[in-house]
Amino acid sequence: MRLVVLPGDGVGPEVTTAAVRVLRAAFASRGLPLDIATRAVGWAAVQTEGAPLTDDTIDACRAADAVLLGAVGHPDAEHAPAHLRPEAGLLALRQALGCWGNLRPARVPDGLIGASALRADRARGTDLVVVRELGGGLYYGEPRGDDRGRAWNTLSYTEDEVRRIAHLAFRVASERRRRVTSVDKANVLETSKLWRRVAEEVALQYPEVIFESMLVDRAAMELALRPSRFDVVLTSNLFGDILSDQAAGVVGSLGALGSASVGGDTDLYEPVHGSAPDIAGTGRANPMGAIASVTLMLRTTGGLPELADDIDASVEACLGDGLRTDDLATPADASPPVGTHAFTSAVVDRLGARVSRRVVGGA
Amino acid sequence: MRLVVLPGDGVGPEVTTAAVRVLRAAFASRGLPLDIATRAVGWAAVQTEGAPLTDDTIDACRAADAVLLGAVGHPDAEHAPAHLRPEAGLLALRQALGCWGNLRPARVPDGLIGASALRADRARGTDLVVVRELGGGLYYGEPRGDDRGRAWNTLSYTEDEVRRIAHLAFRVASERRRRVTSVDKANVLETSKLWRRVAEEVALQYPEVIFESMLVDRAAMELALRPSRFDVVLTSNLFGDILSDQAAGVVGSLGALGSASVGGDTDLYEPVHGSAPDIAGTGRANPMGAIASVTLMLRTTGGLPELADDIDASVEACLGDGLRTDDLATPADASPPVGTHAFTSAVVDRLGARVSRRVVGGA
Ligand SMILES: CC(C)[C@H](C(=O)O)[C@@H](O)C(=O)O
Ligand SMILES: CC(C)[C@H](C(=O)O)[C@@H](O)C(=O)O
Repeated sequence: MRLVVLPGDGVGPEVTTAAVRVLRAAFASRGLPLDIATRAVGWAAVQTEGAPLTDDTIDACRAADAVLLGAVGHPDAEHAPAHLRPEAGLLALRQALGCWGNLRPARVPDGLIGASALRADRARGTDLVVVRELGGGLYYGEPRGDDRGRAWNTLSYTEDEVRRIAHLAFRVASERRRRVTSVDKANVLETSKLWRRVAEEVALQYPEVIFESMLVDRAAMELALRPSRFDVVLTSNLFGDILSDQAAGVVGSLGALGSASVGGDTDLYEPVHGSAPDIAGTGRANPMGAIASVTLMLRTTGGLPELADDIDASVEACLGDGLRTDDLATPADASPPVGTHAFTSAVVDRLGARVSRRVVGGA
Repeated sequence: MRLVVLPGDGVGPEVTTAAVRVLRAAFASRGLPLDIATRAVGWAAVQTEGAPLTDDTIDACRAADAVLLGAVGHPDAEHAPAHLRPEAGLLALRQALGCWGNLRPARVPDGLIGASALRADRARGTDLVVVRELGGGLYYGEPRGDDRGRAWNTLSYTEDEVRRIAHLAFRVASERRRRVTSVDKANVLETSKLWRRVAEEVALQYPEVIFESMLVDRAAMELALRPSRFDVVLTSNLFGDILSDQAAGVVGSLGALGSASVGGDTDLYEPVHGSAPDIAGTGRANPMGAIASVTLMLRTTGGLPELADDIDASVEACLGDGLRTDDLATPADASPPVGTHAFTSAVVDRLGARVSRRVVGGA
């Protein structure tokens, strides 16, 4: 597999380094080739290359099988002109690659029930995926701008845009618990009426999947009250941004979640968390989100689900042994939190142990 | 006080009837005059008057001191033309009255900690108000429409619109814990950049209030993880719609929350919950949201905070005695849930008892 790594800003370099260590160990254990190139993105790229995303980097990403991005965003960039903002690099990358579908799974890892913001009984069953439209909507709509004390943005969707993301949601649901909740604000917005109509049409082609449309305000409330009722949550770009972060909060483990952006030339994988400038460089970042992105990659782009299973099992084993980074630690824990490197080493060790057991056992 | 009641659809008539009973009892206890007129709105008005909101009703509301609305929305209206949708009546009413500011307090009533979706220790401290811009944004922006497989809406804000809602948020915060969190998506949207800039400018005029700007995705996550960190949450129309319903879910008591819409000719009060068609007519609706709207009314429009305190205390006493409507009941409760009428009668009784204690005690 040919991979481009874009470490980016803040904790990005630390967590991508960790994920790459795990990935290398997994590939080595199977004797598979792995080719990795690293490029700058975000504020890091502004510093070294004068722009948050260069054409060279886009070309490298296009030529790869997959891209792993750490995070973008830096406090110094707050007042930078729009085209030099780190986020502009990420939005441009999604567009350049043509990624229009974003998968954001949120579930409570078994070893982490206690770290959840919810009462254990409510959180336990939570296992959902937000399928977010990533290429359009309010993020990219024209006209946009500001002038003389007024600012404006445009929310726009075509039937084709909604249809392809809806199909993706139903395909994902078919492999899961077969339930799609499409989120909109159809009682107010024309774009949402179109969204609802198309989603309902697509639903007819998947009779084995239970379908419902839900208003976004109601969805936010249900996600707070009964998160385990959701399986696949189909959303526009903006609603998906909000609801997927809410879901991360609900399962209480933002640092542990990964995401996949698909549909374009090359699939793009990122942890759900941001660049976390407050802890950057301290060695305390949780690598689980980047590692989860890598297992998504192995399943989605790589066609290597066994490797993903090995990694997932190793991470669960670490959690089961009580290993926690700072963000997941609670006062009730038996041992103090571990750093990024120690957690990653523990995952790599368990991966090695699994592999030798398999070799010895002949399984 | 001259009040117009708009019962609306679903459980609306049941909960407004309940709130009016409580209001009448409170006014009678002080010998104050109360003048109430009732009008149709929403789907109920479509049935009787051919439109979800008539000019007559608008005139009656304009002439009143305050309006109490139950809820709008009916399953039969799902496929009605846009101008006959019950929600269109509510949006038109907000505009006709000129209400641009919406206050949505969310806190866990002391008697309800156990009903919260959160672990008790996290929920206990949650006591926030969403101050939502209600007159503009994506809800009303032009152009809007759909044509040949494409639909569009416009998000637009002026500095003046943001300034007045920001001032309201800071004034509200000055009477509370003195903390404002302004929510936007300034890393993507021009409208949000304007929002952030104006909010920061207004903040300078309230040096005693701690101010922060937060991205909407982060805000949704924080509200899931650490709801008690918020005091006043300042938002646009759409973000406020989503975050206030999330907050209602977080405190686990949607049925118990009221709201005030202010800034126009007449203030408008509504429970946060919808028309709940599934339980309409069963006598099981929770009247607490409508009653909370009435206490907001007494404090905000009525200048009668003592009456509001009496009502609040009576409701807390009922909860303390274990009275719960269906929506708040849990398997752990000692007694079965009570209906709308029984709960309301209990509130009225305790109100009477408080008043006679005061008369006897001479306080
Ligand atoms: C950084 C930002 C532009 C981005 C988004 O809003 O899409 C982020 O919040 C995300 O969800 O990946
Ligand atoms: C009914 C609907 C138009 C309304 C809104 O979105 O404003 C409701 O959800 C609310 O929050 O009061």
